[in-house]
Amino acid sequence: MKHSFEISQIGIIHSPYKTKEECPVQGAFQLEGVGTVELYPEYEEGLDTIETFSHLMLFYIFDRAGKVELCRPTFLDDAPHGIFASRHPCRINSIGLSIVKLEKRDGNILEVGGIDILDNTPLVDIKPYVPIFDHVKNAKDGWVGDVTIRPKPPGRE
Amino acid sequence: MKHSFEISQIGIIHSPYKTKEECPVQGAFQLEGVGTVELYPEYEEGLDTIETFSHLMLFYIFDRAGKVELCRPTFLDDAPHGIFASRHPCRINSIGLSIVKLEKRDGNILEVGGIDILDNTPLVDIKPYVPIFDHVKNAKDGWVGDVTIRPKPPGRE
Repeated sequence: MKHSFEISQIGIIHSPYKTKEECPVQGAFQLEGVGTVELYPEYEEGLDTIETFSHLMLFYIFDRAGKVELCRPTFLDDAPHGIFASRHPCRINSIGLSIVKLEKRDGNILEVGGIDILDNTPLVDIKPYVPIFDHVKNAKDGWVGDVTIRPKPPGRE
Repeated sequence: MKHSFEISQIGIIHSPYKTKEECPVQGAFQLEGVGTVELYPEYEEGLDTIETFSHLMLFYIFDRAGKVELCRPTFLDDAPHGIFASRHPCRINSIGLSIVKLEKRDGNILEVGGIDILDNTPLVDIKPYVPIFDHVKNAKDGWVGDVTIRPKPPGRE
């Protein structure tokens, strides 16, 4: 049986990127982008001991993504790839994931580096990035390893 | 303004783990667990070129998670941690993330290794794991690096 689930916004991600054109393809390629994660104050207790981690996974909603195509050219390749073989924002479920560097916590506000997220994006979860869980040894870059990393082609969703 | 978003199930994750007790804390600690990702056939085109990757990120719903506590003991530590400083399943939004090894694709069916997900879990997204995006150099394990990795304490949610 096919279900649907309700996900609620738990905060707002603020970033220097007001438009899709300004936003980098991946944070790993533009580490200087600094943003702010504003967790709604009622959830602040959920951040307890988060300062022990250097990096976080932010889960958010691609709230300005365009039309979903199951197989499409991507920012990094003009050849089409399936949406599940790509990190493209136009997905069946618009869940975005970014790994960012935790620079500073001030109560319910996190200052983060290496951001690749549009300003005013709805936050839906934060998980710690834990190398012993998340560093997969000998993983392959797939088709991404075969293309030249480039900025976003202008005008492409 | 606080919003909510509808996420729809795109498939089913099948695994050998029928109960929470059987399910490992993290797939990285029990690589022999093999499962099957059944993407609904209408989305099969979205898997195009996925075989070029060795590892995938599965996004799913912790549909059998218990009560949310913002700060709580976790499977790995009896001391409490904020839910956003932990990968614990009982979260404000029940979004789970696991990194698995892609063993084989047969149409809309993916055979995956290193699974740590309960049988019949609703799938909501698949993204490729891309080391050049996701291998963060010099990241810290935070409090997880200070505890002894152990199996789940019996009876603890």
